[in-house]
Amino acid sequence: MTFYALIMAGGTGTRLWPISRQDNPKQSLKLIGGRTMFEHTIDRIAPLLQPEQIFVVTDAQQAQLLMAQAPELPPENFIIEPEGRGTAPCIGLGAIHLHRQDPEAIMAVLTADHFITDTERFRQALTAGVKVAQDGHLVTLGITPASPSTGYGYIKQGESLGAVEGFPVFRAERFTEKPSRETAFHMVESGEYTWNSGMFLWRTDRILEEFQRQMGEFYVHLAEIEATLGTAGYKPTLKRVWPQVDKQAIDYGVMERAEDVAVIPVDIGWSDVGSWGSLAELLSALENEDKEGNVIVGPHVGIDTRDTLVFGEKRLIATIGLEDMIIVDTDDAVLVCSREQEQEVRTLVELLEERGENGYL
Amino acid sequence: MTFYALIMAGGTGTRLWPISRQDNPKQSLKLIGGRTMFEHTIDRIAPLLQPEQIFVVTDAQQAQLLMAQAPELPPENFIIEPEGRGTAPCIGLGAIHLHRQDPEAIMAVLTADHFITDTERFRQALTAGVKVAQDGHLVTLGITPASPSTGYGYIKQGESLGAVEGFPVFRAERFTEKPSRETAFHMVESGEYTWNSGMFLWRTDRILEEFQRQMGEFYVHLAEIEATLGTAGYKPTLKRVWPQVDKQAIDYGVMERAEDVAVIPVDIGWSDVGSWGSLAELLSALENEDKEGNVIVGPHVGIDTRDTLVFGEKRLIATIGLEDMIIVDTDDAVLVCSREQEQEVRTLVELLEERGENGYL
Repeated sequence: MTFYALIMAGGTGTRLWPISRQDNPKQSLKLIGGRTMFEHTIDRIAPLLQPEQIFVVTDAQQAQLLMAQAPELPPENFIIEPEGRGTAPCIGLGAIHLHRQDPEAIMAVLTADHFITDTERFRQALTAGVKVAQDGHLVTLGITPASPSTGYGYIKQGESLGAVEGFPVFRAERFTEKPSRETAFHMVESGEYTWNSGMFLWRTDRILEEFQRQMGEFYVHLAEIEATLGTAGYKPTLKRVWPQVDKQAIDYGVMERAEDVAVIPVDIGWSDVGSWGSLAELLSALENEDKEGNVIVGPHVGIDTRDTLVFGEKRLIATIGLEDMIIVDTDDAVLVCSREQEQEVRTLVELLEERGENGYL
Repeated sequence: MTFYALIMAGGTGTRLWPISRQDNPKQSLKLIGGRTMFEHTIDRIAPLLQPEQIFVVTDAQQAQLLMAQAPELPPENFIIEPEGRGTAPCIGLGAIHLHRQDPEAIMAVLTADHFITDTERFRQALTAGVKVAQDGHLVTLGITPASPSTGYGYIKQGESLGAVEGFPVFRAERFTEKPSRETAFHMVESGEYTWNSGMFLWRTDRILEEFQRQMGEFYVHLAEIEATLGTAGYKPTLKRVWPQVDKQAIDYGVMERAEDVAVIPVDIGWSDVGSWGSLAELLSALENEDKEGNVIVGPHVGIDTRDTLVFGEKRLIATIGLEDMIIVDTDDAVLVCSREQEQEVRTLVELLEERGENGYL
């Protein structure tokens, strides 16, 4: 059995505005160490996989941008979604491509815009996950929670399925949506829950089986497309069928009621880099923090500035008397935001959209 | 007797960094209503004076910039100081020029980088001041205090000298330096003090007399320069003599111990625009404030932003969750500063100087 990676690279990352834009989405941003998020994603799995084993699902707009970042991947490994329909259709489309290439393929579903500090441990986890997936389990990598975050879904561990390559494996008893603060606190305290990272490993035949069982209508669409794979009919069929596909997330569409779901708790320094605060925490962990708790990227001069993220490019950012702030500077826009209200960046982008300020989107 | 204006235009306005720079000093900034501070200064006195009656003391670097802003002034009315030596030498140099042109000249000493909202009342005060100066008084315009500011010197009113053109005139009993908060509070409460605005009116013969009496050494230098006025020897003499002149402010050098000093209290909406907070207050008074107390110049989008100054040019400034902040955006630098610590802008500029970051100075 061969092991393939399917990288989902369709999002935009609104909460990282003004750096992230429609034509420069999150996975193409150089947020950490001068490499894009997508480049880091490829770097991370390159020691395990040949370029031919790495597939990317993205949209037409982003494909060129991503190909330029990973010229070693065969261009035909970039699978173009006519439009984003959520993670379930994205994974289904990838699955039929891999299944046709290798009916015994095991696929690792990965995200293009997350970050992992302990890449060695991550690769060990993937290797373990492949072994567990060979037995027919749908494997999910559960992140050992660093805090009672209310921003992620949680996975409850059920009975032990033993250990593989030094990783304990559990039956996944339940997927829960983003919890309240109190619930999150109790879940983390119990030691029985991990964060749902959105990274999965399974045999393509197993996931297609689950699509057929749980998302029957989608499976019919998928079969229609699959029948045209490798023919001139593929593109027009995809284009015709895809708008009829309902939006669905893999968690709700498949994982919550799937059979034989296993979870491997992993402690790999994972971050979804979902907001400026999250990036600041990550950069702190990567020892980019000064003694006042600031994370500074780009030219800066400061007086009495604490626990502040300064993320610039070319221009000088000068700060005086700040605490817990986020400052992000780009060529055409600058964001100054209280760290407490960083989630409002999304609202701000909506506001710009309402105003028709498309140049800033 | 003819009345002349001598505009002192030598400062840089460090506390308005990053807009103000060595090669773009405060008087040349378009901070209010799309006109530079210097243009406003000229506009303000234009109804009273012919261009020939308006003189400017500045340095060689700024002269071109200022001439371009007031092309109606005769170029020879720009008096070039080889280097700034404080207000006393600046005024002395202006005085010998005016005195030679018109031995009976009355000069109004004005600043190029302050702002006055009630320009009509200001001109009435100048007209009244000229009349008081004719009698030989050294007249100072005292600003009716708007608050117990500790940022200005104060002038104590002595005996009444009557009223001129509807303005009460007092003997100036004492000049005091910047007071403590408590002292300032008592001074303002007493109603007997006004702020020292640095605007004066006097006969040139009277001020030269005071220079001779109180700053004898400087007066000798001045006489040496005066002897060369209108000859080829002027420039080399000025260049040779000026470095020997001690730095001195007119207040300490002359006014505190001068004879026949009068003060005319005026309520003219004066602001020294000495800092970003001061500009914000001024723009508020000019009804540029939104209902959340923000003063916004340039493209802006905000969520939960209060009592904040946003001073931009071309780029979009986005703010979330801010209170009492100052944000100033320029092509090569952006300042984000707590309003409470706005005085630290000067320290920041010093820091840049120490670091040798001359491009930002």
